[in-house]
Amino acid sequence: MKYKRIQIQEILDFLGSKVYGIDGEVNDVFIDNLAEVERVNETTLDWINPSKSNKQEVAKNSKARVLLVDDSVAPIEDKLLIHVKNPKVTLAEVGNHFFVEQPQANIHPTVVIDPEATIGMGVSIGAYCVIGKAVIGDGCVIDSNVRVYDNTVMGKGCVIKAGAVLGGAGFGYERDADGNKFRFPQIGQLIMGDYVEVGANTCIDRGALADTEIGDYTKINNLCHIAHNNKIGRNVTITGCVNISGSNVIDDDVWIAPNSSLRGWVHIGKKATVGMGAVVVKNIPEGETWVGNPAHKLEKR
Amino acid sequence: MKYKRIQIQEILDFLGSKVYGIDGEVNDVFIDNLAEVERVNETTLDWINPSKSNKQEVAKNSKARVLLVDDSVAPIEDKLLIHVKNPKVTLAEVGNHFFVEQPQANIHPTVVIDPEATIGMGVSIGAYCVIGKAVIGDGCVIDSNVRVYDNTVMGKGCVIKAGAVLGGAGFGYERDADGNKFRFPQIGQLIMGDYVEVGANTCIDRGALADTEIGDYTKINNLCHIAHNNKIGRNVTITGCVNISGSNVIDDDVWIAPNSSLRGWVHIGKKATVGMGAVVVKNIPEGETWVGNPAHKLEKR
Amino acid sequence: MKYKRIQIQEILDFLGSKVYGIDGEVNDVFIDNLAEVERVNETTLDWINPSKSNKQEVAKNSKARVLLVDDSVAPIEDKLLIHVKNPKVTLAEVGNHFFVEQPQANIHPTVVIDPEATIGMGVSIGAYCVIGKAVIGDGCVIDSNVRVYDNTVMGKGCVIKAGAVLGGAGFGYERDADGNKFRFPQIGQLIMGDYVEVGANTCIDRGALADTEIGDYTKINNLCHIAHNNKIGRNVTITGCVNISGSNVIDDDVWIAPNSSLRGWVHIGKKATVGMGAVVVKNIPEGETWVGNPAHKLEKR
Repeated sequence: MKYKRIQIQEILDFLGSKVYGIDGEVNDVFIDNLAEVERVNETTLDWINPSKSNKQEVAKNSKARVLLVDDSVAPIEDKLLIHVKNPKVTLAEVGNHFFVEQPQANIHPTVVIDPEATIGMGVSIGAYCVIGKAVIGDGCVIDSNVRVYDNTVMGKGCVIKAGAVLGGAGFGYERDADGNKFRFPQIGQLIMGDYVEVGANTCIDRGALADTEIGDYTKINNLCHIAHNNKIGRNVTITGCVNISGSNVIDDDVWIAPNSSLRGWVHIGKKATVGMGAVVVKNIPEGETWVGNPAHKLEKR
Repeated sequence: MKYKRIQIQEILDFLGSKVYGIDGEVNDVFIDNLAEVERVNETTLDWINPSKSNKQEVAKNSKARVLLVDDSVAPIEDKLLIHVKNPKVTLAEVGNHFFVEQPQANIHPTVVIDPEATIGMGVSIGAYCVIGKAVIGDGCVIDSNVRVYDNTVMGKGCVIKAGAVLGGAGFGYERDADGNKFRFPQIGQLIMGDYVEVGANTCIDRGALADTEIGDYTKINNLCHIAHNNKIGRNVTITGCVNISGSNVIDDDVWIAPNSSLRGWVHIGKKATVGMGAVVVKNIPEGETWVGNPAHKLEKR
Repeated sequence: MKYKRIQIQEILDFLGSKVYGIDGEVNDVFIDNLAEVERVNETTLDWINPSKSNKQEVAKNSKARVLLVDDSVAPIEDKLLIHVKNPKVTLAEVGNHFFVEQPQANIHPTVVIDPEATIGMGVSIGAYCVIGKAVIGDGCVIDSNVRVYDNTVMGKGCVIKAGAVLGGAGFGYERDADGNKFRFPQIGQLIMGDYVEVGANTCIDRGALADTEIGDYTKINNLCHIAHNNKIGRNVTITGCVNISGSNVIDDDVWIAPNSSLRGWVHIGKKATVGMGAVVVKNIPEGETWVGNPAHKLEKR
């Protein structure tokens, strides 16, 4: 756990008009940590889930002095309540601002960059990365040992964790006259939008004769394989160990649970959910949840 | 999409006797791109699938001027037809020759190589690789951040994508007198044939007291784990995120679909297919397709 | 196969009182290899499984001159029997001592280490690793291209294979006022015990507001993803390509088979087994084996 003393007044100044109101004494009050429920102490900045039916009681029983709450929690003796619309979102904003070290814009001297690459403003690239003829947007943060191949275009504010491999040649083969396999040309691009995050050791291949596309704000966890020619929308969540074979279309706000597989050439409709370990061999309509091997629609109970 | 102007005469010279005949005007005609069907334009080198029943119509409706076709497509006004046996294979050959940049034989100065390693002629090794007491065959292309451990033997013309780990110690343990686990010796080799391709961040372990063997032309996609003591044949296709536990025998021309798992000590017969997400706990006879969890034979419908 | 001539007397000296007795001539006898059964030759150090009903016959038919056996195998003409409690464990000890090269304590000059990192005695770190504000215990062996992020604490004697990523930010997001995803603070630690082994390209994330914990002697194979806030016990076996989502509790001596998935917030009881490809969405009681998608208890047959 990380400790850092922060005056509540600093937090109020940071949040500004996001605070609807406060109950309790601010003067000289500080917090010094964020914590899971079982480790909350007097100086934790705690939060109360607005959807809890017993939230007044939960707030009262918290060991913390300062709590982020919605506007339906009534004043509690000896506690400081900070009223906001969405306490968890506000906690995240406070945590990111006060507790998370922001990477400095810096290209480590060991990074190997192709002279034809285009690197934006305020980019951070960690040690031992190898960057081909690629375009890296403003403010991207690329950790160490990352490989970015030629024909990769990254929007602004993307975050790439260690060991990721972006824009590699896709897995397409033909057989020669002797029946031996040889690679079909993989000459498309990988085009990533803004604020895309890519997990550690995840691999995303460039297109074959088309492009691979990843939309803005899409978040991809560790150890995923995304093959050539996929068209992936905005705010899509791709969790750990997911396999996405080639040429799928995945619409905005889809959630893909861990270790699931998409066959290739399937369409996943907006806000659909692919369940953990699901083996998807058919299109999934908008908003539906599919699970199982092979995947089928999960009926509401 | 990559544009590069190529005169048709150059393509005909490259293909030589593979061209059965041509219909239409060659003089001054050029192509400048390869493209998926939805992006074909007048200067795309297009191709027509011989198995399509309406191929004459498809060829006529293509926006491209130049098409690779088999010998059953009749002349079409204002189009140049190049007749070959297998249009897609020919497209791949043309694409690889004219549109794909071939890596230069070069060992990046940052590569750490054990003095006892043997490196063949015309080998390319990218930045930040670490090569142990291994044998690397002629013409191998190893991308960046690859780890090749001692006891790895690689044939000629192998292609290893970024972040792959070859010849690591296998996952075998015994328990000591206190019941704590310690590693069983992993002193075998990893022996790879010619023209093997290994995907990004894929891991192949060396043998324990035997060897791990991978046959010629076998192609392995990204993020696969191949454990110790496997015997894998020729022209085997191992797609993304596949887990192959120890000591299996996989015969020639097997196709292993994404995210499937082999238990260990199973035999997969020649030309068999392991379906996506299949959990294989039994032998699969030659030519059969098995799917599901646990995997069972897929009956023809 | 690795050959190295070792006099039997050297082996007896190394084993000391672990040898219950010997039958046969020791003088001038040597072995020079360890081998799987199909490659055993006259100079292999072979071993006989005590649980085999026909072990006397198997021992007699072995091509090897020297065999490790339990105390129930009777003398055999022209063979040297070395009696021990557990022949395979003894074979492993002999193999590790005589056939496995031990890494030297050495930090490769290319390793990038944060000035605030704490590195123990006798540590080995391979080329192109990047180590943040972490604690690395005595005698740890870290191979090449490994990333250890800030807030990682590693006990003594841990072994980390190439390309592993330890202590990365976990995969937790909130949505901002525009509905776009942004990362929830990930400010916990990754705390690893002693003698933990981590496979190649495996990723273990640090905690969000809690810690991720891995117990002593736990062994993790290649290409696993272990998310934030997991509490994993001692001597747990996590095989290849396993996905462990966030906030699970996994007790001591659990066995998790390849390519299985844990949902998050589940409890796996002591000595339980998660089957290959199992999709675990419920708690598993102590000692039980669960398989399938979704996972269910495997009934004894």
